[in-house]
Amino acid sequence: MTQQVTLYTAKICPYAHRVELALEESGIAYNTFEVDLTNKPEWYAPQVNPASKVPALAYGGPAVDPSQPSSESAKIAESLVLLEFVADISGTRLLPQDPVLRAKARFFIDTVSNTVAPAFPAVIARGEPVERMLTAIEKVQALLPAEGFAVGPEFSIADAALVPFLARAEVILKNDCGAFDEGTGLEAYETLSSDPKFARYRKYFGDIKARESFKKTFQGELIRSKFTEKTTPIRAQRKAQATSSQ
Amino acid sequence: MTQQVTLYTAKICPYAHRVELALEESGIAYNTFEVDLTNKPEWYAPQVNPASKVPALAYGGPAVDPSQPSSESAKIAESLVLLEFVADISGTRLLPQDPVLRAKARFFIDTVSNTVAPAFPAVIARGEPVERMLTAIEKVQALLPAEGFAVGPEFSIADAALVPFLARAEVILKNDCGAFDEGTGLEAYETLSSDPKFARYRKYFGDIKARESFKKTFQGELIRSKFTEKTTPIRAQRKAQATSSQ
Repeated sequence: MTQQVTLYTAKICPYAHRVELALEESGIAYNTFEVDLTNKPEWYAPQVNPASKVPALAYGGPAVDPSQPSSESAKIAESLVLLEFVADISGTRLLPQDPVLRAKARFFIDTVSNTVAPAFPAVIARGEPVERMLTAIEKVQALLPAEGFAVGPEFSIADAALVPFLARAEVILKNDCGAFDEGTGLEAYETLSSDPKFARYRKYFGDIKARESFKKTFQGELIRSKFTEKTTPIRAQRKAQATSSQ
Repeated sequence: MTQQVTLYTAKICPYAHRVELALEESGIAYNTFEVDLTNKPEWYAPQVNPASKVPALAYGGPAVDPSQPSSESAKIAESLVLLEFVADISGTRLLPQDPVLRAKARFFIDTVSNTVAPAFPAVIARGEPVERMLTAIEKVQALLPAEGFAVGPEFSIADAALVPFLARAEVILKNDCGAFDEGTGLEAYETLSSDPKFARYRKYFGDIKARESFKKTFQGELIRSKFTEKTTPIRAQRKAQATSSQ
C-alpha cells in the first residue's frame, strides 16, 4: 500500500531543496507545506520536528491537512537521512542496486558535506573570500564521471545533495548579493562561466538545469531577492565602518 | 559469488573500529591489514586511499596479499560510507528492511556525528572540559529505546557508529589519560558508572560489551597505553607552565 508523504519545506533552504529534488525524481506522489522560517507555526516543533528545522517529512498515517499533522505518521528529519529514505521507498530509482555504486554515491555526498555545503554559509553569509566556493566546486567536480551525473547515467541522491548549493551559489554570485566583498561575486561567476577548468561543472549543471525536477523546484528570482535583502545592510554597515575608520 | 573483502584498519582509530564491528556482526568473511598510522606504507595512499586515512576497504578482485592491493578491487573509504556498504552486502542483518527504521538508524548516526564523535577529540586531545563528553553521551542516550540497541532488538550500523567512541571514552576517563584537567577524567568515569541519569547508557553499553563482536575488536589496554603516552608530555608541559608563571 502506498503511504502518504508530506514534506515540510522552505523554498530558500538548500537542505530542504535536496529532498524536493529527490521526491520529484522519485515519481512518488507527495504534498508539501511551506514553513515560514522567520515565523514558524507553533505546532511545527512539537508535532513535526523537535529541532524546529526544515526539511522534515511525515510518512504514512491518514491523509490530513499538513497544518494538522497526524500523530499516526512517522516524522523524519535531516536532509541526508531523508535522501536515503526517499531512495529506500522508491526502489532503485534514486540509488543503484550495485553496492559499489551505492558507496560511490555516498562518498560523493560525504564530499559535498565537507566542501560545497560548508563553503556556502562561509562565503554567502559570513563573507569569506569567494575563492573558497570555487575551490569547493572544483573538488566536487573532480569526482564527476566524464559524462552524466554524479555516479553514472542516472540522476541519484548524490546529485540531489549537491545541486541546491550550486543553484543558489550561481544566482548569488551572478547578482553579487552575498556577504563577500562587493564585486568579487560577479568575478567568481565569470570564472565559473568561462574558465576552461570549470568546463565539466558547466556541462553537469547545464544537464541538471534541463531536468523537469530542477525547473519545478528552484525559484532563482526568490533566492536573488531574499539574499539581496540580507546583503544590503551588511554592505551598508561595512561602508559606514570604512568611512568612520578613515 | 562472494567477493573478497579486505579492511585497512588501525586498532587505535574509532572510525576504523566502526567498520570492524560491522564486519564482525555481518557474518561476512574478511581480512584485515593493520596500518601503522605513524609510519604509513608508501603504497597505501596511491593504491588504497588517496586521503591516506583508515578505514578503507578493498572489495572484489583476486585474493591477494593486502600489502600488494590489486587494481581490480574497488576501493572504498570513509567510515559511514563503509557502514552502509557492509549493511548493503549483508542483506538486512545490519539495517532493517523497514524504511522508517532505516531512517531511524541514520538519524541516530547523524546525532552521533554531531555529538559524541566531535566531543571525543575535543575532550581527549584538545583538553576541553569532560562535561562536553557527558553531555554528548546524554544526547545519544536519549535516542535509545527502553531496551535493546539503537533502533530495536537487533544490533545495527547505528550501534557500530557509536560504540567505538563510548569504548575509548570509558578507558581514557577511567585511567585519566586524556588532555583534560588531571583528575576530571576519573570524576566523569564515576559519574557515568553510578549517576542514575546514565542508567540507560550503562545497560546499553553493558549489552554491547557482552557481544563477541566487541570482545574480538576492542583492545582496551592498547588504548590506555597509547593515550597515556600521548597525555604524559601534555600534562608535564602544563605543570611546567603553571610553575613558571607563579
